Amino acid sequence: MSILGTWSAQAQNKKLPMQVSEIGSFHIGGKLVEISGKPVKEVVFSPGSAPAKIDPNGNYLVEQMYVQYFIPQKVQHRLPILLWHGGGLTGVTYETTPDGRDGWMQYFISKGWKTYVSDAVERGRSGWASPDIWPTEPQFLPIDNPWNRFRMGSGLWNDDPAKRQQFAGSQFPAEGYLNFMRQVVPRWTTTDAATIAAYTQLVEKVCPCVVLVHSQGGQFGQKVAQARPDLVKALILVEPAGFGDPSKAEALKNTPILTIYGDYIDQDSRWPSIRKTQLELNQKYINAGASVDVINLPEIGIKGNSHMMMMDKNNLQIAGIIDEWLKKKGFAK
Amino acid sequence: MSILGTWSAQAQNKKLPMQVSEIGSFHIGGKLVEISGKPVKEVVFSPGSAPAKIDPNGNYLVEQMYVQYFIPQKVQHRLPILLWHGGGLTGVTYETTPDGRDGWMQYFISKGWKTYVSDAVERGRSGWASPDIWPTEPQFLPIDNPWNRFRMGSGLWNDDPAKRQQFAGSQFPAEGYLNFMRQVVPRWTTTDAATIAAYTQLVEKVCPCVVLVHSQGGQFGQKVAQARPDLVKALILVEPAGFGDPSKAEALKNTPILTIYGDYIDQDSRWPSIRKTQLELNQKYINAGASVDVINLPEIGIKGNSHMMMMDKNNLQIAGIIDEWLKKKGFAK
Repeated sequence: MSILGTWSAQAQNKKLPMQVSEIGSFHIGGKLVEISGKPVKEVVFSPGSAPAKIDPNGNYLVEQMYVQYFIPQKVQHRLPILLWHGGGLTGVTYETTPDGRDGWMQYFISKGWKTYVSDAVERGRSGWASPDIWPTEPQFLPIDNPWNRFRMGSGLWNDDPAKRQQFAGSQFPAEGYLNFMRQVVPRWTTTDAATIAAYTQLVEKVCPCVVLVHSQGGQFGQKVAQARPDLVKALILVEPAGFGDPSKAEALKNTPILTIYGDYIDQDSRWPSIRKTQLELNQKYINAGASVDVINLPEIGIKGNSHMMMMDKNNLQIAGIIDEWLKKKGFAK
Repeated sequence: MSILGTWSAQAQNKKLPMQVSEIGSFHIGGKLVEISGKPVKEVVFSPGSAPAKIDPNGNYLVEQMYVQYFIPQKVQHRLPILLWHGGGLTGVTYETTPDGRDGWMQYFISKGWKTYVSDAVERGRSGWASPDIWPTEPQFLPIDNPWNRFRMGSGLWNDDPAKRQQFAGSQFPAEGYLNFMRQVVPRWTTTDAATIAAYTQLVEKVCPCVVLVHSQGGQFGQKVAQARPDLVKALILVEPAGFGDPSKAEALKNTPILTIYGDYIDQDSRWPSIRKTQLELNQKYINAGASVDVINLPEIGIKGNSHMMMMDKNNLQIAGIIDEWLKKKGFAK
């Protein structure tokens, strides 16, 4: 199976115009955990280097979260937008596509949004904790099945285009699929509370704001907005696969919410149920007084989108729909 | 031990002027590894979500490397500069300081350099492989001892300034020490070959260039330059703790090399030996015909620098010295 070929297949695309006058990052949150009773180790960190005595006992800083931000020269919107990725991924979700085009991060920057992109707790640049601290196992994702689970095609991924069954009309740039899989990182399934704690601290640091979340991030966005509805002024849920707390629907009564779904959901084994859960929760938000919009992209004539719609060939068209919705809801300035 | 206080201690510093017209990222390299004979698992990836059947057997993409790049509006230098971090860290090394000032990344962008910042293989956004694929154990770094090992002070870190023994005249922003420790990620000691392979592919993709490395990166920078001296046009070694191949010194005969060391080396248990190893290797480069400069910062009147000099309070002064050296060597354009 050739994997080097994927580079030559990358499109040389026109980049969005942007002028960024400030770039920075920080880590937020985390806690100290003490480990004791373990033997001292000698570790040679680089071949040829002097060995260092490493005492594994001591205090570890864990569950912090990495956040990178970009300030356009001409800020066009009063609030910043925060982009939170889904499971097994990092903020890279929003900054490139598998075929090398600009992502939603560049889109929002080019539209004059102060843009914050984070790696959830235990993903990417946020780091992760030792088995002494997190006893559960991390999950690793083989390349074969997201092809179907993320609704790009049927069966398993196949490197041979002739043997690959992409859905008819799919907008996913299949030739870059392995570039997408390069973005995948290990993830735990038991770190939700820590992640919510860190996102809450992020919101308390940089908001009021608009929060856009994807997939697993659906839980984080809704629960953090339920905790701080005074700070999360609008919520964009892109195919949420995690959910808010139904008993706290009232908290979002003043929060405009946009929920967006792509194509091929009805023919999928899991997505009808995942969507139904969110739509039932949306009804609770509406009953509490919230303004909730749901866009099923095929119903407005936009077909072929996978679960990774921010990477699909028409990704900027969908970003434009989100931007329009934000304007309608009064977040243009 | 209070860790939240570190935020309030962050300086609100003046940011460097910059105009960035393109931001992007990509993952490069990696290989496919097949796992077989393991049972299928059911995993609930988000609470309340439908369980997904996850077959751990299949093909995994591992050892790829994440690279983010920034193109200034007015490019002032023909070659890009690549910033490679040290052990247990990520590209974040160069994009912020523990007290929230701009890092060397912003410095080089503001000076008109096309700037590439990467996370080495198995660090940060590059992801990492399961124990089925990498059987050796990762290393985790407690917060206590880098304080001494990175030459910020003696003894162990202490959150109480009165109990903390910072070196007299130290430039490290001690009040942000835990922000620095938030940047630390787990690392392996057995992935050097994979990292060199990925960096070599990076150099083949984006160079000719200037490569600046720190600490463990000393090995990667020198070995990759030895493999592709036609592409790595200059090498800046910031306190290298990993080294090139002495038997291939000849390869660098046309490569200008700058080696920089901070303060407090003579009083350290490890650093005199680490520096000696590089200086002996430098002599081999010189014998082969290379132009090698060594700057011991205290000898030119710049005192108080730790191993993390790109984060010290005078970090931009040191970046300026590097910039001057690049100008002298003909890399101003």
